[in-house]
Amino acid sequence: MKIAILLFDRFTSLDAVGPYEILARVPGAEVVFVAAERGEVRADRGSLALVADATLDEVDSADLLLVPGGPGSREALSDPVLLDWIRRVDATTEWTTSVCTGSLLLASAGLLKDRAATSHWNALELLGSLGALPTSERVVLDGKYATAAGVSSGIDLALTLVGRIAGERVAQQIQLLTEYDPEPPYDAGSVAKAPAEIVELLRANNLAITG
Amino acid sequence: MKIAILLFDRFTSLDAVGPYEILARVPGAEVVFVAAERGEVRADRGSLALVADATLDEVDSADLLLVPGGPGSREALSDPVLLDWIRRVDATTEWTTSVCTGSLLLASAGLLKDRAATSHWNALELLGSLGALPTSERVVLDGKYATAAGVSSGIDLALTLVGRIAGERVAQQIQLLTEYDPEPPYDAGSVAKAPAEIVELLRANNLAITG
Repeated sequence: MKIAILLFDRFTSLDAVGPYEILARVPGAEVVFVAAERGEVRADRGSLALVADATLDEVDSADLLLVPGGPGSREALSDPVLLDWIRRVDATTEWTTSVCTGSLLLASAGLLKDRAATSHWNALELLGSLGALPTSERVVLDGKYATAAGVSSGIDLALTLVGRIAGERVAQQIQLLTEYDPEPPYDAGSVAKAPAEIVELLRANNLAITG
Repeated sequence: MKIAILLFDRFTSLDAVGPYEILARVPGAEVVFVAAERGEVRADRGSLALVADATLDEVDSADLLLVPGGPGSREALSDPVLLDWIRRVDATTEWTTSVCTGSLLLASAGLLKDRAATSHWNALELLGSLGALPTSERVVLDGKYATAAGVSSGIDLALTLVGRIAGERVAQQIQLLTEYDPEPPYDAGSVAKAPAEIVELLRANNLAITG
């Protein structure tokens, strides 16, 4: 299984690395990080960089494509080369997937037209304006298109996909290996659960796009 | 707040990037990834590399030190330069922390003697043999030493630390921004919850050290 993970300047690191950690453990998985140019790609905070080992030109197919989000998705949304690459690879995939505002890129590439999809909670309206049918679930599957909500939800997306791709037993093994038995010390991880003033504060500052 | 995250060959990527994504969002946080040499450091699967922006020689203090785990921790355990660096930086920290088998490095550096600490579930015995008092909790705080269990538990560790460092409101904001409201599709994330034969399979293959 060939997995391509797209990187662009100012992506959100956990959007890419959460699913990577799960998917890369599937027997036979071969992952490649892809970007406009080889080498360092800086994430949104500047202090973390992942390495792209292949350029867009060097990768024209994948069994699974993963598109992360991040503040850099704003520029990426209007990058015809990037959107064309997404469409080209999507034509070859069994699964085309995104985390957080990565779904805005899939939608801008025309892949989520009238499909159920999700994104960061503060980007759902924008996702709808791009032709998708936004839902506020954490992981949304519509055909071969699998989208996850904000940042950390990519881990749940990836385990869901592993179950489909390699079966429940492999997914459970990977869950145990990565000791994914979450115990958040606070209960503020969704709009429904967080204190209302925190939701309003973040909405007012339009900080969601930083996911 | 100056945060130093140690990298070494064949670290586990989510051990480092999970906490990074949370900690880097604390107002005033400055994160630096540190390794023996600047540049690419390959994680355990070979297909992911993070970039170290500073060498061990260039960083001699931090408010918070984070040591990830991974299969490469085996070699790191007997690397006197690395252990000496950990001790030197620890002398300056408010928090010295680890994820997964990173706690074996802290213990080997002599920092967890008779302290409660945790590690990947399959490394707890080894952690005990290195002088710590192993517990199977997900996040363990003993004085300024904060250790997390396997791989994904670093996210819970980091949110716990943000609550202590910057207060509950900041931790909740970061939890909402990263939409950390986990919904694992399976319930196999701990030894207590996973099917017994999966636990035995992984123990038999000693795969835990890959976390």
